[in-house]
Formats: sequence, structure tokens, C-alpha cells
Amino acid sequence: MRVVELIERKRDGGTLSVAEIDFLVQGFTKDEIPDYQMSAFAMAVVLRGMSAKETAALTASMVASGERLDLSRFGRVVDKHSTGGVGDKTTLVVAPLVAACGAPVAKMSGRGLGFSGGTLDKLESFAGYRVDLTTAQLLAQLERVGIVVTGQTADLAPADGKLYALRDVTGTVPAIPLIASSIMSKKIAAGAHAVVLDVKVGSGAFMKDRASAAALARTMVAIGVAHGLAVTCELTDMEQPLGLAVGNALEVQEAIAALRREGPADLVRLVRLAGAEMLVRGRRARDLASALVRIDRAIADGSGLAKLRELVAAQGGDERMVDEPSRLPAAPRIEVLRAPRTAYVAAVAADRIGIASVHLGAGREKKGDPIDLRTGIVLRAKVGDRVERGEPYAEVHVAERAGDREAIDLVRGAFRWSAARVPRRRLVLGRIASR
Amino acid sequence: MRVVELIERKRDGGTLSVAEIDFLVQGFTKDEIPDYQMSAFAMAVVLRGMSAKETAALTASMVASGERLDLSRFGRVVDKHSTGGVGDKTTLVVAPLVAACGAPVAKMSGRGLGFSGGTLDKLESFAGYRVDLTTAQLLAQLERVGIVVTGQTADLAPADGKLYALRDVTGTVPAIPLIASSIMSKKIAAGAHAVVLDVKVGSGAFMKDRASAAALARTMVAIGVAHGLAVTCELTDMEQPLGLAVGNALEVQEAIAALRREGPADLVRLVRLAGAEMLVRGRRARDLASALVRIDRAIADGSGLAKLRELVAAQGGDERMVDEPSRLPAAPRIEVLRAPRTAYVAAVAADRIGIASVHLGAGREKKGDPIDLRTGIVLRAKVGDRVERGEPYAEVHVAERAGDREAIDLVRGAFRWSAARVPRRRLVLGRIASR
Repeated sequence: MRVVELIERKRDGGTLSVAEIDFLVQGFTKDEIPDYQMSAFAMAVVLRGMSAKETAALTASMVASGERLDLSRFGRVVDKHSTGGVGDKTTLVVAPLVAACGAPVAKMSGRGLGFSGGTLDKLESFAGYRVDLTTAQLLAQLERVGIVVTGQTADLAPADGKLYALRDVTGTVPAIPLIASSIMSKKIAAGAHAVVLDVKVGSGAFMKDRASAAALARTMVAIGVAHGLAVTCELTDMEQPLGLAVGNALEVQEAIAALRREGPADLVRLVRLAGAEMLVRGRRARDLASALVRIDRAIADGSGLAKLRELVAAQGGDERMVDEPSRLPAAPRIEVLRAPRTAYVAAVAADRIGIASVHLGAGREKKGDPIDLRTGIVLRAKVGDRVERGEPYAEVHVAERAGDREAIDLVRGAFRWSAARVPRRRLVLGRIASR
Repeated sequence: MRVVELIERKRDGGTLSVAEIDFLVQGFTKDEIPDYQMSAFAMAVVLRGMSAKETAALTASMVASGERLDLSRFGRVVDKHSTGGVGDKTTLVVAPLVAACGAPVAKMSGRGLGFSGGTLDKLESFAGYRVDLTTAQLLAQLERVGIVVTGQTADLAPADGKLYALRDVTGTVPAIPLIASSIMSKKIAAGAHAVVLDVKVGSGAFMKDRASAAALARTMVAIGVAHGLAVTCELTDMEQPLGLAVGNALEVQEAIAALRREGPADLVRLVRLAGAEMLVRGRRARDLASALVRIDRAIADGSGLAKLRELVAAQGGDERMVDEPSRLPAAPRIEVLRAPRTAYVAAVAADRIGIASVHLGAGREKKGDPIDLRTGIVLRAKVGDRVERGEPYAEVHVAERAGDREAIDLVRGAFRWSAARVPRRRLVLGRIASR
């Protein structure tokens, strides 16, 4: 097999066989195929696409490039994944709830990049929380506590890690087959039997429109089916941030509130939906209705919150922070933005809020940048809310950084106002699922 | 300037500024921009194209990456270039003729690759002929003899050399802006004031159809104009080989025959046309008609042949071979193919003849492969010719190689026959030129 011929075929819009894709992926992983050939191939994929069969083969090859966790002794394990958005702290709420309902949760999460926050960063708000568990530690904790939220281990889908690093520096990130196979290869390698996915749509998400989000969702469902996984994919709104808090410790605080029945409506709605889907896909509930009852009970009886406490303690974090959120890292100063006149919120641009959070130090511009756990934005109003003149509509939690002024301006500019009443935004835009 | 942003812009169909293209080319030449970014960029160019302005800028950057010959003391210097085809020995005939007419010819040629022969390989049929002249030697010989045909020197357009090597292994060769800028950057760096180009069209050429050949021609003319060069571009047929001989020493023999008024009609036609265009572009003739008279005289009076003799001698080759072609390398055996029945030749597939020549050892599959100067194919009939049953229609000059059988079958398969009369093919398909 000649690499150039495979690149040429893709360049000309043709398709590669399963064996040809595996040849590329394994050769690349073993450094037998150089970066410059793989990046040309990736660009051809960005511009020419891949068939469903090719995408499934790419995923399988990336899974086969490393180890694959066997979690079958825990019964049916359901993973979750969000494509990332501004203020998305769903995992922090839904993982403990689902675990409290008896479904094992072994979640490998990532760090934040750009305006998209990372679950690992957020969890590190709990002083001492460890995100670098070994596979053995992960398995032991899953056995003992029923829940683990840690970083990706290097031995799972190493081809994906290597390919992603190359795509990141060669302008070849935005290709649905590459995005879908990257996500799914990690889920499959991590031992999931089912996956509940949340594809965010809007200015604060990677997918800006419903059509491309649906295409990504369909591709991931197809990959799952090809690998024997049940997959549910929700398409949810990311034109405005999810919930009210954006920033690491601020989001942890909101997640804890949600586990105490004090969460904002949209976050709670999404958490209940994702949690119920996970219970159904994990065969811990007969149908969505009964699953929702169980999720609601785990919120009402405090068992979800207890599970978060157990998780934090198991991974070395300061569990007192769960019950006393005032112990969480906090910014030294809060700038309160007040409405210049009474009006309805017409829009809260998620991308601007996200970029503002990066300026505040709560997010990274590039990999490896340090992060400030304390800073961020707390919305006091969302689309459809009426704000009286002089009342606060947002708080900016600042730590005296060079970017503070720009961040505050961005938050101010993110709000669009209307004299007339504005309907609330629909949160759930669609659902694409395997049988 | 961030490289990734430039790649992304081209990927998304945008255009780059002159400064941005120069940043990429110079960074790449200095090894500051890695191959994997440049290959992704090249693939984006293959699939998204480049504007005329971008293409001119790319050419200028490649010229600026190295030295540029100053030939102005020789007056107006005209270069020629063919995009390559099967049996194209035009340079061997036209360069001596033009030089004999008093126009200085400093031609840098290449080696053969794939089914496209290289002028340097052909010239090496003259025992001892040197193709590695230094710039100083080139200038001295041009002064003394008025003609030089040698290899590309490394200090001209090094960016083109580096980029071409990368394109060759990343499936990014077939992009008109990249092909055009590669050709033109070398001509400009080599000091040409005008260029006469021959873009081959057909199965035996890189450009398979007239539309893409015309696009390449227009692009090269535009680059020339942007750099102050006069450019004439002929589009010529490459569905069947040019002339009758295909193979190194065989083509040299045919070229010598053409200089002795014994050349095949299509080759002579092309030589006269290209030679006359060169004289006009070099301002050694008022118009094409008077230029053709001079070219014809240089054939008739033997001054063209004398100039070839001088060239061969000046570059250390055995000049006796010019007058006694029997001294040229010859294959040990000739397989003669005879017509199974009387018929007209309907097609002689240039690509099959070219591939056959590679099997015979007359061409290379990959760079650096050794070449057999002796072997090749001599057609005894071309499209439109009538061949009587039992008469030869082709000779295959073999040197007892593993690929001989396949080569002979390819030559046989290259011929299509017709019981009815078939018109001859049109040789010149079009002309695109600057003013």
C-alpha cells in the first residue's frame, strides 16, 4: 500500500477500505507514516469528507491503537460526553446523580480550551482533587465508590491523541468524521457500553448551526452502532450559556446548588434529561418516565450530593467544600453590571461570555496555560427575563488582571435588550439515537 | 502571523495577502515552518485553488528564496519549457536551431519521471555529456557557444525544490497554481526575459483535457506578465506520442534526423513553431513568418546540426555521435510488431507507450532509479496511417528485462485499429500568449 495513493484517492473524493484506513492509522501511530503525509490526508478529509464506513473504520483503528478498558464486570456502563460549551457543568451534577441511582460512572474528562470549560479544571476547585488516576486506581475506585471522574489515560486510543495534536496545528480540526471518531474512539476504548451525548449548537459551541450539529450527532450514533454501542444524542442550545455561572469554582458552586434542588431551570432540565437517558441506556430504568422519577429522587433525598462528596473524597479533594461552598476559591472582587433601563433580555451571546471568561483567566487560550479557578461570570438574567432599571444583570468575578476591562465590556456587549417581551429559548433542539 | 490561521483561511476558500504567502514560503524554506503545516496548506490549495494574485506572489517568493541569474548582457534571452509528454524531444532540436539563428539559449532541464522523458537523460546518450554545470560554467559556455543545456542549479528557487519534494509525497502535485508557479519560478530565476511554453494535452500528459491545459497556460501567462516576462503558450496534442521514437538514444537519433531534414512531420511542425515563437519573443525576428524562414534555413543549411555538435562538444559529450548515430547506445534486440490485418491506425495511446518505455528501462518509476539509454519504442505508424497486413507498425527495442513482455503487450494494446479511413490528429490545439 502506498500512502501517497491513499492521500490522492481521498483528495479526489474517493473512499478508502477498512484495511487502508487501518494501515494509515497504525503506520502514523508507530511513526512509520510521517506527520506531513497525515496532515495532507487530514486536510483532504476536511474538504472531501468520509463515508460512514470509513469513519467507523477510522474509529476502530484508533481504538485498536491502544488498550481498551474492560468494564463488563460492572454490568452495563454508560458514559456521557458533551461537545463543550460555555457554562456546561452538566457532568458535575449528572454523574453523581446517576451513580447514586446505582449505575457505575467512569468518566474521563478533559481540560478547557478556548471558551469551552473543562470538567477537570472545574473539579480541581476542590483542593487536592486528583485527575491523574491510573487504570488500576480507576477500577478500584469504581468498584468501591461507583463513580470516577478523571483524566484520559495515555494508553487509551493513543492514535487519537497523536492525530488530534497534529490536526490542532494544521487547520484540520473541523471535519465531522474526524471530530466524531475522536470522541467515540475514546468512549469505546474507555469501556463504555452506551453513550449519552450532548451536541451543543450555537455561538458558544463548536457547531454553529443545527444542521452541522445534527450531522455530527448522526455520525457519532452511526459509529456507536457499528461498534455495538447504544448511543443517544441530544442537540441542545448554546446561543446563551448553560445555567448562570461561567468559571471554574463558580460552576462547581452552581453544580452543588443543583444537587441541593437550587439549580437554574435550564441546567436542571438538561441534567434530568441526560441522567434519565443514562439510566435507560444503562438498563437501570425501564423508560424515561421512571428514570426521571429516580433522578428526581436522588436530587430530593440528597443521595446525589452525597455521591459527589464521596467522589471528591475518593480522589483526594477537600470534601468540606461540597457542604460549605464558601470554602471554594473565590475572586477578590465582583463587578456588578446593572441595567441602564428596564428591558427584557433578548440575547446573551455565549461566545462573548466565553471569551470574557478567558480574559478573566478562567479559560485558556492555548494548551498548558495556567487557569484561575476563582474568576468568571455569573449571569443574573437570561433570555426572556425582565430586568428593572438599576438592577444587576450580571456579575463579573475579577482577580485584577490586565484583561478585566475587556472582559467586562465583552459581558456588557453580550447582552442584547428588548423593550418588548422576549420568549425564552428552547433548550433541547433535537434528539438522534440508536435503537 | 499564525501559520494555522493562514492554513484555515485557505481551507475555507479565502485568499492570502502577498506578505502572508511570502511568510509561508520563506518560513518553509528556512525550516521554520514544518513540513506538516506546509503539506496541509498545499492540500488546501489543491482543493481550494489560488487567485492570480496569490499565484504570482507564490512565484515571486520562490524566486526570492534563492539567486536569480542575470543574463541581460546576452540581450533578450528566451527560454522554453514543455510540461512533458511521451516522445517529446523538442528541446534537442529547437534549442540548437534557435541558437544557430543567433538567439542565446540557456536551458535548464530535468530528468524523466513516470512516463515523461527528461531532456537530461536523453542528452546523456552522448557519452560524456555533463549536465551539472556551475553557474560560472553556464555563463562562460553561453558566451562562447551561445547554447547551454544543463541541469537546474540548486541555488535557483530552492523553495520550489523543497516544496516540490514535499508535494511529491503528499498527493499535492495536481494544483494548477502550484504547477504553474513551480515552472515559472525556475524560468524567472534562470534569467529568462521571455518563455515559450508547450502545454501537452492528452493521455500521455499531465493535463488530460483541453480545459485544464488552457487553465494552466493562462495561469503561467499571467505569472509571466506579473513578472514582466513575455510568454507564449502552445497547447499541443499528447493523445499519441510526439514523433516516432520513444526512449533516450532513440529520441536523440530522431532529433538528429530532424536537424538533417529527416524528422517526422509532427515533430518538425512543433519544432518550427516553437523555434519561430522563440525568435519572435527574443526579438530576433519581426514576425512568425520571417522567423519560420530563418528556422527553415537553419535546418536546410546544417547550421542547427552544427550547433548541436558544438553543444555536445562544449559539455564534454562525444560529438562523433552527432554525425554517426550508429555510435549511440543501441538495444541488443528489436521486437517488431506487425499488423494482423490491413487497417488504419485509430489511436496510439500515449500513456500506454509511456508506461511500456518505463517497463523497458527507458524511464523511471521513482526518482533516482537508473535508466537504460538504449531501450524504447519506435512507432512505424501513427493515427491516420494505413498499415498493410504483415507490415510492421512498431518496434520495441529491448534489453532482456523482466518487464519486456509486459511492455510489448502494452505497445500492442496502445494501438487501436479501424477498417475505415481515420483523419490525422490535430497537433496544435490552441495558443495563449501575453502581448
